[in-house]
Amino acid sequence: MTMTRGEFLKITGSATLGAMSARPSFFEFRSAPSGFPEDILNSEAVRKIHRHIEDHQREHVAKIQQFLRQPSVSSWNMGVTECAEMLRGYFRQLGCKEAELVKTDGYPGVWAYYDAGAPKTISTYMMYDTQPFNEKEWSAPPLEAQVVKMDPFPQVIIARGAINSKGPLRALLNALESIIAVEGKLPVNIMFTCEGEEEQGSPHFHQVLAPYLVRLRDCAAHLNPGPSQNRDGTVSMSLGNKGIAYVELEAHGARWGRGPQRFPIHSSRKAILDSPVWRLVKALSSMVSEDGNRILIDHYYDAITSPTEEEQMLVNTLVSRFGDQLFSSEAENKRVWINDMPAADAARHLLFDTTLNVDGIWGGYTGPGVATILPEKAAVKIDSRLVPDQSVDGQIALIRRHLDRHGFSDIQMTKLGGGDEWSRTSVKAPVVQSVLSVYKNYGIEPGIWPRTAGSSPQAQYTRPPLGLSACGGGMGHGGRAHSVDEYFVMEGNDKVAGLVKCEQSMVDILYTFAHWEA
Amino acid sequence: MTMTRGEFLKITGSATLGAMSARPSFFEFRSAPSGFPEDILNSEAVRKIHRHIEDHQREHVAKIQQFLRQPSVSSWNMGVTECAEMLRGYFRQLGCKEAELVKTDGYPGVWAYYDAGAPKTISTYMMYDTQPFNEKEWSAPPLEAQVVKMDPFPQVIIARGAINSKGPLRALLNALESIIAVEGKLPVNIMFTCEGEEEQGSPHFHQVLAPYLVRLRDCAAHLNPGPSQNRDGTVSMSLGNKGIAYVELEAHGARWGRGPQRFPIHSSRKAILDSPVWRLVKALSSMVSEDGNRILIDHYYDAITSPTEEEQMLVNTLVSRFGDQLFSSEAENKRVWINDMPAADAARHLLFDTTLNVDGIWGGYTGPGVATILPEKAAVKIDSRLVPDQSVDGQIALIRRHLDRHGFSDIQMTKLGGGDEWSRTSVKAPVVQSVLSVYKNYGIEPGIWPRTAGSSPQAQYTRPPLGLSACGGGMGHGGRAHSVDEYFVMEGNDKVAGLVKCEQSMVDILYTFAHWEA
Repeated sequence: MTMTRGEFLKITGSATLGAMSARPSFFEFRSAPSGFPEDILNSEAVRKIHRHIEDHQREHVAKIQQFLRQPSVSSWNMGVTECAEMLRGYFRQLGCKEAELVKTDGYPGVWAYYDAGAPKTISTYMMYDTQPFNEKEWSAPPLEAQVVKMDPFPQVIIARGAINSKGPLRALLNALESIIAVEGKLPVNIMFTCEGEEEQGSPHFHQVLAPYLVRLRDCAAHLNPGPSQNRDGTVSMSLGNKGIAYVELEAHGARWGRGPQRFPIHSSRKAILDSPVWRLVKALSSMVSEDGNRILIDHYYDAITSPTEEEQMLVNTLVSRFGDQLFSSEAENKRVWINDMPAADAARHLLFDTTLNVDGIWGGYTGPGVATILPEKAAVKIDSRLVPDQSVDGQIALIRRHLDRHGFSDIQMTKLGGGDEWSRTSVKAPVVQSVLSVYKNYGIEPGIWPRTAGSSPQAQYTRPPLGLSACGGGMGHGGRAHSVDEYFVMEGNDKVAGLVKCEQSMVDILYTFAHWEA
Repeated sequence: MTMTRGEFLKITGSATLGAMSARPSFFEFRSAPSGFPEDILNSEAVRKIHRHIEDHQREHVAKIQQFLRQPSVSSWNMGVTECAEMLRGYFRQLGCKEAELVKTDGYPGVWAYYDAGAPKTISTYMMYDTQPFNEKEWSAPPLEAQVVKMDPFPQVIIARGAINSKGPLRALLNALESIIAVEGKLPVNIMFTCEGEEEQGSPHFHQVLAPYLVRLRDCAAHLNPGPSQNRDGTVSMSLGNKGIAYVELEAHGARWGRGPQRFPIHSSRKAILDSPVWRLVKALSSMVSEDGNRILIDHYYDAITSPTEEEQMLVNTLVSRFGDQLFSSEAENKRVWINDMPAADAARHLLFDTTLNVDGIWGGYTGPGVATILPEKAAVKIDSRLVPDQSVDGQIALIRRHLDRHGFSDIQMTKLGGGDEWSRTSVKAPVVQSVLSVYKNYGIEPGIWPRTAGSSPQAQYTRPPLGLSACGGGMGHGGRAHSVDEYFVMEGNDKVAGLVKCEQSMVDILYTFAHWEA
């Protein structure tokens, strides 16, 4: 049955929630052998590895700092290639037989293969680039990776990339090095595929994967261990992600044939000349409702399909379990949700609704004080998050069509980034069940989200031709990705794990999945 | 009789122009004694001064370059005070008994008084600050003041401030020094009042004038000699200026109580959070018609009064004389006027219509490539040019009222600059007739515009308490004020005067007005 988006948002509305009797447990999908995975996690090997991580905490923090101090801002072409080289070096130190840069039309990817001679092989994704930053807004320099106290955490690293995702990347390598130091080899073979353009929307990641697609088919799953606790210690697990389309629109007098043609002119001329800035404002205004929350582009919602039964069950479980606390970890920088909706509705919108967001807008004089000019152009960056079955190119085509039909055919549209497609994995997949069982061993029952509202190139692993199940997870916490004072907790508190437990949980996940019976 | 703006634009529309029979001559308002001003302009003294200017051309160019190389970008606080000191030094070198910096709440003004012991005293305004610039867009560095060839001119100086207005300022001082070198003193006493915040909208110029208001009342007129030829050699004289109101609007999540509150957050959150950028877009969109040319702010046009009979006569003369060539000098950076109106209508809009222009807009990530954020704020700079009887504070209050009534009371409005009021002087004033007679002597019949579409603090001289008549003018040419490659012609061609004739014409104007019988 296919429902329209409106129907779905209605039938899963809070009014129907009372009718749900028992909350399903997502640990029951697959019955594991008795004592599993506890026996493995309590084994001598794993306990030794845990102790090794404890004993090398200081070196592990230092290795994370080293990696964060190497800039890799893909928007600015700042340190990106150097960072790729550094990452390849890490793989060589780990003992990967293969560790090479992969040429693309953009920044290089990195491929590495660790052959443990194990029966199972996993695929792991890594990104080594970061968002840009405005240093003067930060409380500590974003490239210094200082360890500081940040209430309520005794020690965090503040740095661009601290949590998204160079910190966790290096933490995983620390964990793998610890396994090898104790056991001589990893419990699984790992194929690492890494890129330096994630923050650009992964425009060339398919070129990184292409040479290895045949080999990647041998993987049992796509597994990404990493710190996943919220600020309050809870865990939100995501079984996929939204897609993203990213475009830049520019109104220019020269293409329009009206207003200033080549450069800004004296603003007194507005009396007789058209303004490309007003034009852009009108074009933008035509795209969304007065409150900015409903997209008015024809057919923009048409491709959206109803959530699957599993997705509906997952979100209803989230809502009945967390109620108004669904987003408690995000309270510091917002007050109310769109349309004053309750958290339950907000969760559904976050999961199942598409968006149209202005990431940046600029035109004319933007410095301090006064400059009186009629600008010749103005531009905007827009992103749209996509849900099944929207596609990147399909939605971009609708934006173009909207502009054309509203008389804005002169407004130039440029696609930026590769445009990640949406991805999903079933909660029943062994790799998901493995991660869940590790959480259970730490006394944590994650909130399971059908997908994250963010985007990643995960679809390139989970959708054809590879079709792998994908899952991530682990103890530990960081925050303020894409914002100021991005951080990664090194020493935790009573709620949130520090780096030691973060790395230990990565070990647990690998060992559990290695021994999970397919 | 007071007409509404609509009525005026109708009755002076091009359809009625055919009915106008004879074009009035504005040289006939006052009959001068026979042989005047030719006798003065052909006098031994004036001819000697002209020759002195010719003989010192190279030094005069160098002095202009020196002044332009001293930065004075008021928006950037770049070199402004140093430039004020330099200007005071010039006045001392000229022989002014008084030459002092005038403290204000902003950058210092400069007051200087040259006492020639003459019966007549004139007031002269000078600005020593400039617009900012984006150096990499210029063909020659904007602070180097290089003399280069720029078709169709054999030699121009390219520099920020070249024509607006440090170049002309220094040219006038060159002319005055030449008079003193030859004759020992000037033909009139001059009170100079100067500011370094014109490009900021002259926010503190009243503080420069305040200590000297009583003395300025002794002036016979407010006279500003300066290069006024268009690119094609014609002259457009303006008898006043429009006012300007300049505000910055900022939408911020914290004031709104919705959306991101303190910093940008991950753009995936647009699904559940409001966007201050969309809010600003909607607020802006509500202010103007679809084409961006009609202001939809209630009562925005109400204060506009019908042009005076003299203004109507002047504009009809312009239209019948120049027709489609009214704006021929501005052709390089535009294609068509708003609403595809003919030049005649454009002239009326430029003179008698108010405007709402976006000088700059910004929010979120505006750098290269991709950044996926939901910005916590967005802002815009807006200027509005004002005509009689609009007032700066009255129009700003209407913008505020519009925002409030449309539900945007959280959008912060900040007035920038002082907000110049409109100014007008009658064509019959002796100071205007003096300048016109000098032009006539050079074989030029200026197009006389009731006002310039730009703004200046001239109203502080022409409206109470001073009430002086004001006029500017002179041979010579420059262009691209406020834009890239701003220039001032040093060596002219068959149409446009170079620096020598520019300075000579300044001398002529001073001598003519000095001898004009009141």
